[in-house]
Amino acid sequence: MRPSDRTPEQLRPVTLEIGVNRYAEGSCLVSFGHTKVLVTASVEESLPPWLRGKGQGWVTAEYGMLPRATHTRGRREAAAGKQSGRTQEIQRLIGRSLRAVVDMKALGERQVLIDCDVIQADGGTRTAAITGAWVAMASALNYLKDEGVLKTDPILDQVAAVSCGVFMDTPVLDLDYEEDSNAEADSNFVLTGSGDIVEIQATGEKRGFSRAEFDRLFGLAESGCAELFAMQRAALGR
Amino acid sequence: MRPSDRTPEQLRPVTLEIGVNRYAEGSCLVSFGHTKVLVTASVEESLPPWLRGKGQGWVTAEYGMLPRATHTRGRREAAAGKQSGRTQEIQRLIGRSLRAVVDMKALGERQVLIDCDVIQADGGTRTAAITGAWVAMASALNYLKDEGVLKTDPILDQVAAVSCGVFMDTPVLDLDYEEDSNAEADSNFVLTGSGDIVEIQATGEKRGFSRAEFDRLFGLAESGCAELFAMQRAALGR
Amino acid sequence: MRPSDRTPEQLRPVTLEIGVNRYAEGSCLVSFGHTKVLVTASVEESLPPWLRGKGQGWVTAEYGMLPRATHTRGRREAAAGKQSGRTQEIQRLIGRSLRAVVDMKALGERQVLIDCDVIQADGGTRTAAITGAWVAMASALNYLKDEGVLKTDPILDQVAAVSCGVFMDTPVLDLDYEEDSNAEADSNFVLTGSGDIVEIQATGEKRGFSRAEFDRLFGLAESGCAELFAMQRAALGR
Amino acid sequence: MRPSDRTPEQLRPVTLEIGVNRYAEGSCLVSFGHTKVLVTASVEESLPPWLRGKGQGWVTAEYGMLPRATHTRGRREAAAGKQSGRTQEIQRLIGRSLRAVVDMKALGERQVLIDCDVIQADGGTRTAAITGAWVAMASALNYLKDEGVLKTDPILDQVAAVSCGVFMDTPVLDLDYEEDSNAEADSNFVLTGSGDIVEIQATGEKRGFSRAEFDRLFGLAESGCAELFAMQRAALGR
Amino acid sequence: MRPSDRTPEQLRPVTLEIGVNRYAEGSCLVSFGHTKVLVTASVEESLPPWLRGKGQGWVTAEYGMLPRATHTRGRREAAAGKQSGRTQEIQRLIGRSLRAVVDMKALGERQVLIDCDVIQADGGTRTAAITGAWVAMASALNYLKDEGVLKTDPILDQVAAVSCGVFMDTPVLDLDYEEDSNAEADSNFVLTGSGDIVEIQATGEKRGFSRAEFDRLFGLAESGCAELFAMQRAALGR
Amino acid sequence: MRPSDRTPEQLRPVTLEIGVNRYAEGSCLVSFGHTKVLVTASVEESLPPWLRGKGQGWVTAEYGMLPRATHTRGRREAAAGKQSGRTQEIQRLIGRSLRAVVDMKALGERQVLIDCDVIQADGGTRTAAITGAWVAMASALNYLKDEGVLKTDPILDQVAAVSCGVFMDTPVLDLDYEEDSNAEADSNFVLTGSGDIVEIQATGEKRGFSRAEFDRLFGLAESGCAELFAMQRAALGR
Repeated sequence: MRPSDRTPEQLRPVTLEIGVNRYAEGSCLVSFGHTKVLVTASVEESLPPWLRGKGQGWVTAEYGMLPRATHTRGRREAAAGKQSGRTQEIQRLIGRSLRAVVDMKALGERQVLIDCDVIQADGGTRTAAITGAWVAMASALNYLKDEGVLKTDPILDQVAAVSCGVFMDTPVLDLDYEEDSNAEADSNFVLTGSGDIVEIQATGEKRGFSRAEFDRLFGLAESGCAELFAMQRAALGR
Repeated sequence: MRPSDRTPEQLRPVTLEIGVNRYAEGSCLVSFGHTKVLVTASVEESLPPWLRGKGQGWVTAEYGMLPRATHTRGRREAAAGKQSGRTQEIQRLIGRSLRAVVDMKALGERQVLIDCDVIQADGGTRTAAITGAWVAMASALNYLKDEGVLKTDPILDQVAAVSCGVFMDTPVLDLDYEEDSNAEADSNFVLTGSGDIVEIQATGEKRGFSRAEFDRLFGLAESGCAELFAMQRAALGR
Repeated sequence: MRPSDRTPEQLRPVTLEIGVNRYAEGSCLVSFGHTKVLVTASVEESLPPWLRGKGQGWVTAEYGMLPRATHTRGRREAAAGKQSGRTQEIQRLIGRSLRAVVDMKALGERQVLIDCDVIQADGGTRTAAITGAWVAMASALNYLKDEGVLKTDPILDQVAAVSCGVFMDTPVLDLDYEEDSNAEADSNFVLTGSGDIVEIQATGEKRGFSRAEFDRLFGLAESGCAELFAMQRAALGR
Repeated sequence: MRPSDRTPEQLRPVTLEIGVNRYAEGSCLVSFGHTKVLVTASVEESLPPWLRGKGQGWVTAEYGMLPRATHTRGRREAAAGKQSGRTQEIQRLIGRSLRAVVDMKALGERQVLIDCDVIQADGGTRTAAITGAWVAMASALNYLKDEGVLKTDPILDQVAAVSCGVFMDTPVLDLDYEEDSNAEADSNFVLTGSGDIVEIQATGEKRGFSRAEFDRLFGLAESGCAELFAMQRAALGR
Repeated sequence: MRPSDRTPEQLRPVTLEIGVNRYAEGSCLVSFGHTKVLVTASVEESLPPWLRGKGQGWVTAEYGMLPRATHTRGRREAAAGKQSGRTQEIQRLIGRSLRAVVDMKALGERQVLIDCDVIQADGGTRTAAITGAWVAMASALNYLKDEGVLKTDPILDQVAAVSCGVFMDTPVLDLDYEEDSNAEADSNFVLTGSGDIVEIQATGEKRGFSRAEFDRLFGLAESGCAELFAMQRAALGR
Repeated sequence: MRPSDRTPEQLRPVTLEIGVNRYAEGSCLVSFGHTKVLVTASVEESLPPWLRGKGQGWVTAEYGMLPRATHTRGRREAAAGKQSGRTQEIQRLIGRSLRAVVDMKALGERQVLIDCDVIQADGGTRTAAITGAWVAMASALNYLKDEGVLKTDPILDQVAAVSCGVFMDTPVLDLDYEEDSNAEADSNFVLTGSGDIVEIQATGEKRGFSRAEFDRLFGLAESGCAELFAMQRAALGR
């Protein structure tokens, strides 16, 4: 009885469209249902000061939400003069997730800056962002290989993310906003193509939740990510 | 001999697409060639403190640019902790331009907040934003009339904007980035449907320019805006 | 093979000392080995604006670290002019963890502000902070009951937290700084006295890690928290 | 029928006094009626990072207003922690206006920093600032020539500015505060000694205004600037 | 052997000119030699929130320095985004000094805001500011009495300030910049017309200094302030 | 009749405990009655840019207060986004006081950063901080000498500080919070072991105060500091 009439283990319609920005080395417009995130991957031949001269590269991410991406207009962070704690938490998560599958030595002394901007939000923006960011980053690094800048592919594995939660006492996959607002528990799983854990965040929203419930969420995430990995490969034409 | 092979008096292909945001009362995705601006118009039943209880409404605008809207990635203003002088200058211009054609008494004690976010930038983002913002605002106010919230239309006239400049000693309409970067003079005209001036900004970039050149730019802007007014009406189905 | 000679399932020496601040309604100095966090719980008869008049209370937390709590001096956040993303992430976690075990209606229209200041850091500051914060909060609410301000105890359950990680391919409990810096995976578990999950955060630091490893970390956390719950009760004289 | 009993084409009494600051390489106290702006031109043998090593100089400006320069006290921007959008817009305009008449190669690798501080404001502060800033800058560069630091004069032409507006349906020159607050249209013209346009900003305040009105404002500005150019030369003893 | 050829107990030429701002309720341009501070006193019929409804008024001060008030240009605090520690220290001192001689009950529920802006700095700006601020405040309150807003004079006494220091082992009065930069000890005395101490700040700059030296500085300050009190009365026409 | 039953010339119980931080080169927990300040001295082999390459070192200090150090909880400065004027004033005073007794050449090109964090506040936090900071700094420099990093002791003398005030018309030593809140005059004296003045700050809080009262305060400070110097030496085992 999900508001969207999905079964508990059903993703929303997901699309991953590359090449949506004329200037970026890589880009991807990712949608999970009504959630839409525009991701660009920019390659810069420079590094933050603390990393210079170590023979390795870096991947970092920033996240933002257009003020009217949401049901009611939110304050523009640039006008407020700072990024919220939520924004910082999300962009740190995206960066960590991508770095987990990149060989920084193979990347060389350059930086990939990922920008994830939420055009429209209906739940699951951070997991959509991670899933799309991997595609944008892979596009950018493909481009660098095609240009002869990179000799080897620094990407070690795929990474994708999906949310799961306990909604009306039922574990379900890929919460939309209506479910998310009313879930008893909410979690985000970031997994690699080979099935390893990159990151798990799980929170009891209305009550604590049991280890049995958690295990069921984990299983949903594993099958959801398997679908996402296939879509990522298809988006890149593999 | 424009880089884009246009004649001096030729606009780039312009599109104005409404209804592009699921939540906003009005929205418009405007493109002038490769320049793309996503505009939303949000209606709030509240006013800034200094306007409360005066029996009138308000229209205001904010402007932003995604970090990789440009050829090289720019710094995210939310991360930098402030909006640049350029951003503030542009959003003040957009707000003034729209307020010039709205009857604030007829709007009543509510506020229209316009968000103009540049998805991709190839010159002329502020004039594209104004042109699209009028469409988004008109959509939002149409919606309020349809809902019975407004009895009369508070919009007094159309407003549109276009840039003109002196490029290689020739006055031309609607500069793209390549022209803009090399123009001797650069100007933005904001005009009403009835032909009045809302705002003129003209700047000599490499040299001062003559009053005769200015008059020619003005003429180009008048004919360019006439085209834009027709497209605005078409976008709204009038 | 742990640098501290502990067995994999062994906590560091933990102390929880209440009444360490002369003014606060509740306070606790918590230490996990060399990690020391001073926690105060301040009760204010006021609420943030968005909660007023709803017949319920609120619990929130702030976190800070003295500049020389760490091996090398860190920048003072007040001088830097903002709290880091890490700080915000941690204080949001502490607040959520405590709110999960408080009946906000029973608390009434008042606020408990928890301040967690790290005096010395040797890994696990956020989990030590949560474990001590529950004690400080319970002390403060006991005091309110003794004063007759509260009729019933708004605390529904205990909450404690502990870190676990995969160090040299072995899952171990309660990482110190040396382990934390070299762990393959790092996780924080926040559990209730009745065994439910309040929050799980697990991150692969050097590599993804397997579901089997995760399950082992979860088991270590459950036994570690069981010890902590007993110490919390002892600190309160129960 | 101007509140000040001036004819439509009449400037307020204008004074330009040089040498008013003991330390600055150049300075000018400019007054347009009750509007008084203290301008200093500081020469620094350094450049902003993005200009270094290009064999050219730079001119930039900052603008401020003393809190009680106005009828009612305004907030001190240093205490507010940021410059308003209006301030930034004005200081960018002043900088552009001066750079339009300076040969940056002839200036050499040094910087002229113009500070315009409004001591008392009665309308037209930005145009007074530009007019006085040219005098302060010319004084400073004269000094550098006298000292033998500069071989040639980097100043290519004079630049001055004046406001015009439509007040009670009549185009008038050099608005004071009372006129400015009630004008139907408001404009600022920045012109060179040879009659070229450096910058035009024109805004309909209460209504759009016609091209015929604009042309009349332009004519007033041309004659007003002609008077100002003579006064600038007189102030420098030319 | 003072650089300015003054005797140890000699003030620089001091002027106090009132009525220098057209809008402020009171104003004073104070100069101590080349040090010039423009002070305005603004009366507002409002109070900071924490003082409302207590049947008393408030006096507060802000201090600023024009960027080129000094030998080399300093950074504009509004552009830097914050007031320096030095600025805050000085404006707190000015406020305390004035409040010491005002009967807040007699002032009534209104606020006097003192703005001290240093036009040119040659040492002793804070003491010049205090001395001139008392005159500006007295002018403003005289005006309120003349207008019938105040029944009684809320000013209880005069207050003036002067710096003294040990320069080349000699205690001297009223340091200029050259002396101040090389003094062994530096002090500021704020005294009342009746000879009481409002504030003393004394600092050993190059070495500690003896109580005997301090006592000599105190004596110089007492005689210097006596001269200043007479000038303050003269400036007000008393 | 002091609230604490002390005689006018009696200090509160003072303790100075070194070695309280595991990582800092020097540390001291200082208490004056219920006032407790944790001081660390961190040595860094780097200097601020303006001091590099001059063959000398630097000593600087930062000050903070835990939010619930006080009777009612104060706002966390890191969350507020800036240090208050009071905080900046105090940390500047601490830095100046310590620098007065250090030979910067003998220190060499390194920096001692003093952090003074108030754990609990009952009046006199800045004077306690200075007194403890000298001990922490001396410990750190002893450590550097023991390690052979320093050949000679850069400390020229002791420095200590104490507050005095006029309470109920009686000059008293070492004000606690209750006295401080009600004192007619308040002063802080920073003196060297050889009896010289490093800094005096004296303020009339409720009224101006006389030179005779001031002289009595000075005498109390001299005897109080004599006691503190002995305790500093004892804390260091001298």
